[in-house]
Amino acid sequence: MRNDDGRLCYGGDWNPEQWPAEVWREDVALMRRAGVNLVTVGVFAWSRLEPAPARYAFDWLDRVLDLLHDNDIRAALATPTASPPPWFSLAHPDALPVTADGVRLHHGSRDTYCAAAPAYRAAARRIAGVLADRYADHPALALWHVHNEYGTTCHCAHTEAAFRRWLADRYGDLDALNAAWVTTFWSQHYSDWAQIAAPRATQYLANPGHLLDFRRFWSDTLLAAYAEQRDVLRAANPAVPVTTNYVLGDWVPVDHGRWASEVDLVAIDHYPPAVDGGAEEQTALAADLARGWARHGAHRRGATDRPAAWLLMESAPNQIHTTDRMHTKEPGRMARHSLAHVARGSRGVMFFQWRAPAGGAERFHSALVPHAGPDSRVFREAVDLGEMLRRIPEVDAGRVDASVAIGWDAACGWALRHPGLPSQRLDQHAEVAAAHRALWHAGIACDLVLPGDPLDGYRLLVLPALYLASDATADWVRDHVRGGGHLLVTWLSGVADEHGRIRLGGYPGAFRDLLGIRVEEFHPLAGDDRVPLTGGGTGRDWTETVHLAGAAPVTAYLGGVLDGRPAVTRHRIGDALAWYVSTRPDDDSYRRLLAEAARLAGVAPVCPDAPPGVEAVRRRDGDRSWLFLLNHTDRPQRVPAAGTELLTGEPVGDAVTVPAGGVAVLREPPR
Amino acid sequence: MRNDDGRLCYGGDWNPEQWPAEVWREDVALMRRAGVNLVTVGVFAWSRLEPAPARYAFDWLDRVLDLLHDNDIRAALATPTASPPPWFSLAHPDALPVTADGVRLHHGSRDTYCAAAPAYRAAARRIAGVLADRYADHPALALWHVHNEYGTTCHCAHTEAAFRRWLADRYGDLDALNAAWVTTFWSQHYSDWAQIAAPRATQYLANPGHLLDFRRFWSDTLLAAYAEQRDVLRAANPAVPVTTNYVLGDWVPVDHGRWASEVDLVAIDHYPPAVDGGAEEQTALAADLARGWARHGAHRRGATDRPAAWLLMESAPNQIHTTDRMHTKEPGRMARHSLAHVARGSRGVMFFQWRAPAGGAERFHSALVPHAGPDSRVFREAVDLGEMLRRIPEVDAGRVDASVAIGWDAACGWALRHPGLPSQRLDQHAEVAAAHRALWHAGIACDLVLPGDPLDGYRLLVLPALYLASDATADWVRDHVRGGGHLLVTWLSGVADEHGRIRLGGYPGAFRDLLGIRVEEFHPLAGDDRVPLTGGGTGRDWTETVHLAGAAPVTAYLGGVLDGRPAVTRHRIGDALAWYVSTRPDDDSYRRLLAEAARLAGVAPVCPDAPPGVEAVRRRDGDRSWLFLLNHTDRPQRVPAAGTELLTGEPVGDAVTVPAGGVAVLREPPR
Amino acid sequence: MRNDDGRLCYGGDWNPEQWPAEVWREDVALMRRAGVNLVTVGVFAWSRLEPAPARYAFDWLDRVLDLLHDNDIRAALATPTASPPPWFSLAHPDALPVTADGVRLHHGSRDTYCAAAPAYRAAARRIAGVLADRYADHPALALWHVHNEYGTTCHCAHTEAAFRRWLADRYGDLDALNAAWVTTFWSQHYSDWAQIAAPRATQYLANPGHLLDFRRFWSDTLLAAYAEQRDVLRAANPAVPVTTNYVLGDWVPVDHGRWASEVDLVAIDHYPPAVDGGAEEQTALAADLARGWARHGAHRRGATDRPAAWLLMESAPNQIHTTDRMHTKEPGRMARHSLAHVARGSRGVMFFQWRAPAGGAERFHSALVPHAGPDSRVFREAVDLGEMLRRIPEVDAGRVDASVAIGWDAACGWALRHPGLPSQRLDQHAEVAAAHRALWHAGIACDLVLPGDPLDGYRLLVLPALYLASDATADWVRDHVRGGGHLLVTWLSGVADEHGRIRLGGYPGAFRDLLGIRVEEFHPLAGDDRVPLTGGGTGRDWTETVHLAGAAPVTAYLGGVLDGRPAVTRHRIGDALAWYVSTRPDDDSYRRLLAEAARLAGVAPVCPDAPPGVEAVRRRDGDRSWLFLLNHTDRPQRVPAAGTELLTGEPVGDAVTVPAGGVAVLREPPR
Repeated sequence: MRNDDGRLCYGGDWNPEQWPAEVWREDVALMRRAGVNLVTVGVFAWSRLEPAPARYAFDWLDRVLDLLHDNDIRAALATPTASPPPWFSLAHPDALPVTADGVRLHHGSRDTYCAAAPAYRAAARRIAGVLADRYADHPALALWHVHNEYGTTCHCAHTEAAFRRWLADRYGDLDALNAAWVTTFWSQHYSDWAQIAAPRATQYLANPGHLLDFRRFWSDTLLAAYAEQRDVLRAANPAVPVTTNYVLGDWVPVDHGRWASEVDLVAIDHYPPAVDGGAEEQTALAADLARGWARHGAHRRGATDRPAAWLLMESAPNQIHTTDRMHTKEPGRMARHSLAHVARGSRGVMFFQWRAPAGGAERFHSALVPHAGPDSRVFREAVDLGEMLRRIPEVDAGRVDASVAIGWDAACGWALRHPGLPSQRLDQHAEVAAAHRALWHAGIACDLVLPGDPLDGYRLLVLPALYLASDATADWVRDHVRGGGHLLVTWLSGVADEHGRIRLGGYPGAFRDLLGIRVEEFHPLAGDDRVPLTGGGTGRDWTETVHLAGAAPVTAYLGGVLDGRPAVTRHRIGDALAWYVSTRPDDDSYRRLLAEAARLAGVAPVCPDAPPGVEAVRRRDGDRSWLFLLNHTDRPQRVPAAGTELLTGEPVGDAVTVPAGGVAVLREPPR
Repeated sequence: MRNDDGRLCYGGDWNPEQWPAEVWREDVALMRRAGVNLVTVGVFAWSRLEPAPARYAFDWLDRVLDLLHDNDIRAALATPTASPPPWFSLAHPDALPVTADGVRLHHGSRDTYCAAAPAYRAAARRIAGVLADRYADHPALALWHVHNEYGTTCHCAHTEAAFRRWLADRYGDLDALNAAWVTTFWSQHYSDWAQIAAPRATQYLANPGHLLDFRRFWSDTLLAAYAEQRDVLRAANPAVPVTTNYVLGDWVPVDHGRWASEVDLVAIDHYPPAVDGGAEEQTALAADLARGWARHGAHRRGATDRPAAWLLMESAPNQIHTTDRMHTKEPGRMARHSLAHVARGSRGVMFFQWRAPAGGAERFHSALVPHAGPDSRVFREAVDLGEMLRRIPEVDAGRVDASVAIGWDAACGWALRHPGLPSQRLDQHAEVAAAHRALWHAGIACDLVLPGDPLDGYRLLVLPALYLASDATADWVRDHVRGGGHLLVTWLSGVADEHGRIRLGGYPGAFRDLLGIRVEEFHPLAGDDRVPLTGGGTGRDWTETVHLAGAAPVTAYLGGVLDGRPAVTRHRIGDALAWYVSTRPDDDSYRRLLAEAARLAGVAPVCPDAPPGVEAVRRRDGDRSWLFLLNHTDRPQRVPAAGTELLTGEPVGDAVTVPAGGVAVLREPPR
Repeated sequence: MRNDDGRLCYGGDWNPEQWPAEVWREDVALMRRAGVNLVTVGVFAWSRLEPAPARYAFDWLDRVLDLLHDNDIRAALATPTASPPPWFSLAHPDALPVTADGVRLHHGSRDTYCAAAPAYRAAARRIAGVLADRYADHPALALWHVHNEYGTTCHCAHTEAAFRRWLADRYGDLDALNAAWVTTFWSQHYSDWAQIAAPRATQYLANPGHLLDFRRFWSDTLLAAYAEQRDVLRAANPAVPVTTNYVLGDWVPVDHGRWASEVDLVAIDHYPPAVDGGAEEQTALAADLARGWARHGAHRRGATDRPAAWLLMESAPNQIHTTDRMHTKEPGRMARHSLAHVARGSRGVMFFQWRAPAGGAERFHSALVPHAGPDSRVFREAVDLGEMLRRIPEVDAGRVDASVAIGWDAACGWALRHPGLPSQRLDQHAEVAAAHRALWHAGIACDLVLPGDPLDGYRLLVLPALYLASDATADWVRDHVRGGGHLLVTWLSGVADEHGRIRLGGYPGAFRDLLGIRVEEFHPLAGDDRVPLTGGGTGRDWTETVHLAGAAPVTAYLGGVLDGRPAVTRHRIGDALAWYVSTRPDDDSYRRLLAEAARLAGVAPVCPDAPPGVEAVRRRDGDRSWLFLLNHTDRPQRVPAAGTELLTGEPVGDAVTVPAGGVAVLREPPR
């Protein structure tokens, strides 16, 4: 979302309810100093807004919104439903969530509700309605921010009742459900809907169809909870857009693609968990995912005339949370990561959070105004970033320019977490990330697409670990290839149908014919094992007995039981090539493989002469284009380019020098 | 069990209820191609057989059994009680199992019942009875297969009531129970049976006597559940043998020896968890255990006139399940492992499973007909194996020829898993396996025996980690030695009585006098520590302060607080030697030690000149004998032998060449 | 406690209830042989003393106490309330404890009660009262030993009700509680006391104020349970002192300092978990902590005229329990560890336990009379130790001589275990231990002090990881420095107030001005990372951006984002120096740093010329003094010293040779 003033969004979560009013005034003055124009308010303010059932206290929020408006700062006003107040939990213990083990979770953190509990849903609708009534026409209101990071599940009786209704809707009759879940296995045939429970703790391996549908049910249930609030808010003022912020990760029972057509603006929270050799790639992937969801949603709604909108709604100004500690970002990294998101389509940069709290569970979460106050590196960098964003609003008109698409489907990530798979280390997200990283290092732009999305304009479709493939998905891929599009499929793809049932007769059942191969057996590898491949490089994690059935071998395994058998194959279909990769290549081999597949598909890098470590992203709007150059190295880098560098305002002839750890944004000459 | 036609059993679990009838016909045709003559049906078919309470659907099973019969394939017909249908769990929530933490496990997997719950037991008896009524005289019926892999526990109220009854039966009065459990410790004196609970989660360390008896109770309770079904089945047609398939591991609360006299055929499921340097030894140990149980059961029933029957009821055609992935077996390994079982007494080879399922929790479990179909390596190997088995039925008459016995007792494994022991890495099974492996590598055949079993014919008795030893066990060992039998006892043996109470006055209380030593203190070692011993080699895991009291030192510790003190000792009693091993020797030292102990006891290897990596097993029936040679190496091996090689039909003069990874079976010249 | 006969206490836990009477007689004879003069009886004897509700069986205890008295051995008579009998749990299931997950823990171990449950408290008072009535005047009674190792928590309904009452007492009104817990974060504002629950399992991160107060509540609740019993016992005979034995570790919800003024004798149980390079230092730290608590309690009660009393109530004669096994102590280690406690103020040496049990959960716990019986190394060493203690009772009059104080506060340890901290490896106890170890290796004596304790006489105050600091604590430190005392503060100290609320404006808010610095950002390090420092040495775990504001740099970071910035600083205030250490130095650097800080504060080592590995402790009473020399090396060590060596009775001129692994105790010439 661009603000009315034509600027990119800039700001973050602001929690005035945690501070006395004198701090509010200091905050707004500091916001102005940093160029902040949008803040998210009210996310966790339920107990302040409704201190007792149906007793409201809006005075403070009135003053906050007026103060913002007086200072030309707009508000993303949140509904506070991610954290019911203590009085709610005391009154409705049946609305507290229950784990698969049957443990009732209690108040004391956030998200302590079951989203299928009627009492919770009613209370959430009510507070959303009251907020809508009061603030829908407030001049500071730019956006409704529903809830926060939907992502909980529950296994209580309300859940089970709702799950049964959802299943009845989905399958119509029990025969269809029994067939989809293959309940002939282990005597699990259901003869009455009442027999179906949530997948609670059980004696041994659970039914994968049951697990998969429970995730889908939760995605739809959370979406319904969102949509109820959205409808209330929209009714009060249809001009104000409504969204919710996605939290990423395949532990989240949310199919973000399905949700994308239900929000007016795709918004993501992004916290890369890696420090070295990973944070940049993860940032690029998250941004490409967000853009992919936005594009998917826009397509579903038929709104494809302009770049699909998405916004980085939360990111960390400072600490990166790793597994065992918080890593403080090096100087410059905050701005570079922020502009990486803008480069890939975000309509601005929002942080969690504006001011570090003095207490509470996240007392050490990072902030633009840290515990040490504004006399700090992080706040000075925030001021600088605000200035940068002020200089580049024009880029918002451009679409990211990509001719390669990577297929992605949330349900595959869920299905590969199930027990009973040939390896316990399968991870769809890691496989998508590996393919994306290979393209990133090759300097090749890509979009993330969902099965069924239009593929016109893409020269190469990459399907990493697309484990579940319905017949419709198989058709979608076939149509792409028949239309001349190139294809690259990796191990684990197309093995099962949308219910997780194995496609028989040889793997990967959904794509076997297209790829001109037949896989007879899997040979998963142990933890550190590496298998050498012809042509250099190694495979890890997984290998397969691949029989050629039309395809030609590209590389082969060396040694072991698969010695001499194909590892990577290529099948020519008309003008297109359909590649199959039966192992996980090492990063360098994977980069070379994808670069070659792209080259043969007629796809070139964004900036072929950019030095290693400089990420290049181009956005284009008709004959206008902008080139982002992100220098991830610790020394200045000279990059061939032309136009005007917007951050400095300097003209660029044939090359620009990007500072160490810095960014250049060029308005390129019209092509 | 040999089939009526004089052939060895060959087949596996077949689940026609998962497939349409056209697949049945293809299956039976493929079975005939592979030489299959026995299939297990109905194991998890309860919900198909009894889709609603007391409403039965036998039509499909009628057709299945008829189809088998028409094709000369016999059936091991299972009672389906390992997987109650959803309707059962919905109607009887009190029959769902409860963990030690009080978590009620739900339907959704298999084995979701409490075997002490009256409703479950009644339902199980009922379905067994109905099956008996309908199929007891079916011509295809070769064997009743009760349930599947008994091995669950529960901690519910039904369990507690049954546990109290079992304790009252065992102890008669509370004084005896209090004494056995040493309830004077930590104020645990019971003054009323009602005070005794299942060993639920508690604040700190649990009472070891309580834990031990709870395991024994479960073994007896599961056995009672089995016996109820057996009696129903047997009553319908006494001519049909009845069994159940054992699942191995000391996590299983089943004392397989005690069960052996209650089955007509000892049947085991065996899935070695190791890939390299371990799978062969584990296979040999599993087979020797099965034979030991069968021998024990036959002895109890007075049926010792012919080889005690046992059968490999389940094994994997293909994947080996390791901790983190499935390892696909190399070509030839399936047949070699299968014949290793036959060599050691199995009356055939059965697999789990015939055809790989398209769904369900075990969709990637291995099968003779894999997802890829019969055009596959695994099915071709299955055909070959069927041919091999067809050529060697005569071996079934022979007994495995062994003069060394290893003592084994399930309760020791349970007791060494209790908290509060001097080391947290104690593992009876690992110690038995280490001794067995040492003998295996020395080429010396051995039997597994249970305390009390007849020991005539054994020159050497080995007791590894026989932690619990009753007075009767001590007498049994003493009688063996007094009769001239040699003895080798390792650390941890004889420390406690049958209730886990320490035998005072110096370890190992039960065998101290016999061994001519007195152990004053234990010195468990840390994870990777190794202690050098005189004469080469090292000890690990455990060392002890051993005082000589008649014994002579064989090797001594080098360095540390035990420097110069005895590590291995030897006590001469009449003509016999009684060895004590106070540490766990490295594999090579252990092999040399046991080879020497065997040699001094007058025991020679099966095939003294077999090259390393070739396993030799001899079966003997009067003056007839057969020699199995299993070549575990990746090159052909020439082995001195004579007679007729049955697999090829070739005569052998003075040596046979066993193919790489292959097997030879010789009918030897009469001695 | 010294016995009436002027001897140091010597003995341990004796459990005659586990043995027949003939063993009692053997035990007492062996006690006399070893010189035992005090035994703890009755600790876990509830079910023997009260076999049914209000039915008592004292006959055996009468005989036991009489037998002790007849043999000049005195008794620490325990109330048995740490282990309610089975009948109690059956009658009062609501008094069984509940975990945070809601799991009800069952009978079957020890400590299976909720100390907030009225039924438990009533039963505990009753049995204490009955014991008091019967034995308060028994001539063998030397000490009441209430309960055992208080340390449990619970989350049941009784607990929640008591927690609410405790909070109402502490905060008076909800506004104060809401402010202390910062409930504006995540909508946790409480509007009714009834809304406050125990910190049960919840969806995500819990509120740190909530967690912290729940620990404090438990400390006070357990203390109340103790005090009830104490009052009953004291009323029966005010002349008999009353205590309870502390169990150490920050998992224990007991603020031992607060408890110290409620016991007549601080008593600790100490089991060092380390074998090499750690056990000696841990022993010294435990003893210094005990002395610190005793001193704190004496100060609170105004009883500072003589050395504050404490006693090592439990220690292991033999095994050291490490993470994976029990390590048997080397010869001599038992006596050396025991005398290390006496050197640092213990009024004797008590062991758990006298005789090893034949059963029960702790059947392998160590004992003076092991399973092997008295013909054993450990019993012979016990006899020797008894003789040593008989020779040195005069040392009991001396105070340990120390001029350095280390600040310690239980709540800091609890707070640093909370979720959401910048590193998951924060550990106050480890930081205190690191500072203490550095001083130990520098040969410098120190006391442990609690915030608010008098600091006169201390030249240097060290505050390692004193995370929570109230305003009163800040004043206490400031007064010390203003009075000329030196100060050394490490990272993590003074960051938060007593509720865990961050002190804003730059870390460490409580001490920033005093230290002349301002810390802007934390930079926690990953697991194995080490940062080099100027002047040699490295930092680990943590680094910081330190701005100088009056202080001078001492060492600086080398490399990375902090290159050249201060690591250690020093601020001169009058004559005093206030040091700040912003990382965890390696052990050697830390030793040098603290030695230098001590030297500049005018503090010298106890025995400057003692060779490495010889620990020296001096106790002083007026002009009399005693020097303990503990030789932790495996060879004899010559140490400059003079006086009379009490263990041998030999005069010492200018040096004494301490045997390998042995101890010397010198009565020094009057100064």
